[in-house]
Amino acid sequence: MDKIEKIKAGDVRTVSRLIRNLEDQLPEATSTLKLIFPHTGKAHVIGLTGSPGAGKSTLADMLISAFRSKNLTVGMLAVDPTSPFTGGAILGDRIRLQRHAEDAGVFVRSLATRGAVGGLARAVGDAIHILDAMGKDIILVETVGTGQQEVEIINHAHTVVVVLVPGMGDDIQAMKAGIMEIADVFVINKADRDGADKLDHELRTMLDIAPARQSGWRPPIVRAGNAFNPETFRASMDDLAQQIEAHYKHLVQTERLVDRQRRKILVEINEALRASILEPVLADLISSGAMDDMLEKLYHRQSDPYTLAEDVARKYLKDRPEKG
Amino acid sequence: MDKIEKIKAGDVRTVSRLIRNLEDQLPEATSTLKLIFPHTGKAHVIGLTGSPGAGKSTLADMLISAFRSKNLTVGMLAVDPTSPFTGGAILGDRIRLQRHAEDAGVFVRSLATRGAVGGLARAVGDAIHILDAMGKDIILVETVGTGQQEVEIINHAHTVVVVLVPGMGDDIQAMKAGIMEIADVFVINKADRDGADKLDHELRTMLDIAPARQSGWRPPIVRAGNAFNPETFRASMDDLAQQIEAHYKHLVQTERLVDRQRRKILVEINEALRASILEPVLADLISSGAMDDMLEKLYHRQSDPYTLAEDVARKYLKDRPEKG
Repeated sequence: MDKIEKIKAGDVRTVSRLIRNLEDQLPEATSTLKLIFPHTGKAHVIGLTGSPGAGKSTLADMLISAFRSKNLTVGMLAVDPTSPFTGGAILGDRIRLQRHAEDAGVFVRSLATRGAVGGLARAVGDAIHILDAMGKDIILVETVGTGQQEVEIINHAHTVVVVLVPGMGDDIQAMKAGIMEIADVFVINKADRDGADKLDHELRTMLDIAPARQSGWRPPIVRAGNAFNPETFRASMDDLAQQIEAHYKHLVQTERLVDRQRRKILVEINEALRASILEPVLADLISSGAMDDMLEKLYHRQSDPYTLAEDVARKYLKDRPEKG
Repeated sequence: MDKIEKIKAGDVRTVSRLIRNLEDQLPEATSTLKLIFPHTGKAHVIGLTGSPGAGKSTLADMLISAFRSKNLTVGMLAVDPTSPFTGGAILGDRIRLQRHAEDAGVFVRSLATRGAVGGLARAVGDAIHILDAMGKDIILVETVGTGQQEVEIINHAHTVVVVLVPGMGDDIQAMKAGIMEIADVFVINKADRDGADKLDHELRTMLDIAPARQSGWRPPIVRAGNAFNPETFRASMDDLAQQIEAHYKHLVQTERLVDRQRRKILVEINEALRASILEPVLADLISSGAMDDMLEKLYHRQSDPYTLAEDVARKYLKDRPEKG
C-alpha cells in the first residue's frame, strides 16, 4: 500500500521503476496495477499522432507548456516501437526530460517493448493507468506514425490530435491509415512552409465530403507556427490546448465520453484475458517442448494447425457444459 | 474427400464457396482446411504491397500475364480490410476477373473480413493454403498499404515486392512502415514520371547504408513503364517476374526458404491456438452475460481487469501440475 501512496503522490522513482517492470513484462507490475486501477479514470487522455518528421515531439513539449500555464499537470508517454531503424527512445527521453526536468507538474517517459506489437499496446494502456493514478490532469500519448498503431491509439485516448506537415504527401497518408476517421483535432505543423494553404484546403474538403459524424463534432484545424519563432508558436499551442479542451467538453456534454471510457475498458479486458488465458498456455507449450514437436509435424505436413490447436484446447481447457 | 479432389482439380465454384465460408468464419471451412493442409507448401508465395494509388492492381494484372507466358499458373488474393472508406472489393474483383476470366490457369479473388485485423490475417493464411492446394505455381497476395499489414505480409510471403511511385513521398513512407526491412524486390511504378530518378537514387542510397543482410541478397529495383504504353510495360513486367524468380532461387540455394516456411508455420499455429483457446472462452463470456458484468464492474472501478481475467482463467483453464 505504501507503494500505491507513493505513486499517488507522484514519486518519480517509484513510477519509473513500475514502468520499467511493465516494459519488461514482470509479474510484479501486474500486482501493483491491480491496486492502482481503482484510482484511475480521471485524466483527460490525448493521443498525438502523425508521420515521422511531422515535428510531434517539439509540438508535444510546447503543448505541455501551454497546459502548464493553465495550471494543469501533465503526464506524457512517447511510444516507441522497437525497431532496428529507430532505437532512439533513450536519447529522446533525455532531451524531453531536460526541458521540464524541474517542473514537478510534468512527468515524461518513453515506452518501448522488445516484444510484439500487442505487448506494446497493453503496456500503453497500463502506463496510462499509472500516470492517471499519479493524478495528472492531462495524459499526452505520442505515437510514432505506423499505420496500425495510429488507429489503435483511439482505444486509449479521449481526444486524438493528428499532426500533418505541408509537402510530405500527408493528404494521401491521412486518408490511407484511416486517420480521417479518428482525428478529433488536426494540426498543420510548420505552417509557414509552402503548401500549408493547400493542405488546409484539402483537409477542409475532406471534412466536407466525409459522412457527418454522429456526434456533431467537426475536427478543427489548428495551424502551428514555426518552432524557431517562439512567440507565434506559443500562441498556436495555446489555441491547440483550447481546442483540445473544447473537444473534451463536447465529449462530456454529449455523453460520448462514457462511450470512449467503455471502449477502453473493453480493450483492456480483452488484453488481460489474452495475457491470463492464451499466454500461459503458449508458455507451457514452449517450455515443455510441445511447441517444437508441433512445428516439426506441421513442417512435414504430418498434421495441420487446426487439429493440433484443438488437441491443445482439449488438454488445457476445462470441459464446458453444453449451452442450453 | 470429393470436395478436396475438386479443390485440387481447381474447381472454381468449390474454391469460391470455401473462401466465402472462410471470410464468414464458418466452422465448416476449418474442417475442409484440415484436409487441405497436407497438400500445401508447394507454391511460391509473393506479397505485393505499397501505398494506395501506387498502381498495384494494374501491375498485378500485368505480372500475372508475365508469369502465364512462362507457363506458370497463378492464384491471386487481393486483401481488402473492410473500412467505411473503401468497400470496393466486389467491384475490384469484377474488373480483375474480366481480364483473366477465360484463363483456367489464373484464379483471382478479393478477401475481406468484417471482423478484426487479426481475423483478416488468419483468413489470408488460410486462403493461401487453398490456392496452394489448387496447385497454383505462383500465389500473388496484394495488400492495401496500411502499415501493420504491410509488415505482416512477410509472415506469409516468400518474396515481398514493394511498389513505389515517384512524387508521393514514398521515400519517407518506405522507411516509415519498416518496408525497407521486408522488401525483397522494389518496383518504381509509373517510372516515366518526374522524380523517378530521384526515388531510384534515394532507394539505392538507403540500400547502401542499410545494415548488410545476413542472406547476402540485395533487393533489385525494377522500373516499370507507363501502363498506357503496353510494350514497355510488358517488358518491365517480364523483368520483374525474372527478379522474383531469382529471389526464389536465392532462397532455395541459401536454405532461407526453410526459415520462411518455418516462420509461416509458427504464425499459423499461433493463430490456430488463439482461435481454439481464447475465442471459445470469449464467446462463452459474451453469451453467458459474464462479459457485460465484468465491463460494468470495471466501469465503476469495483474490480480491475487483471484480477477479473485471472478469475476467468481459473474458471476455464485446467489446473496444471507445477513445473519441476
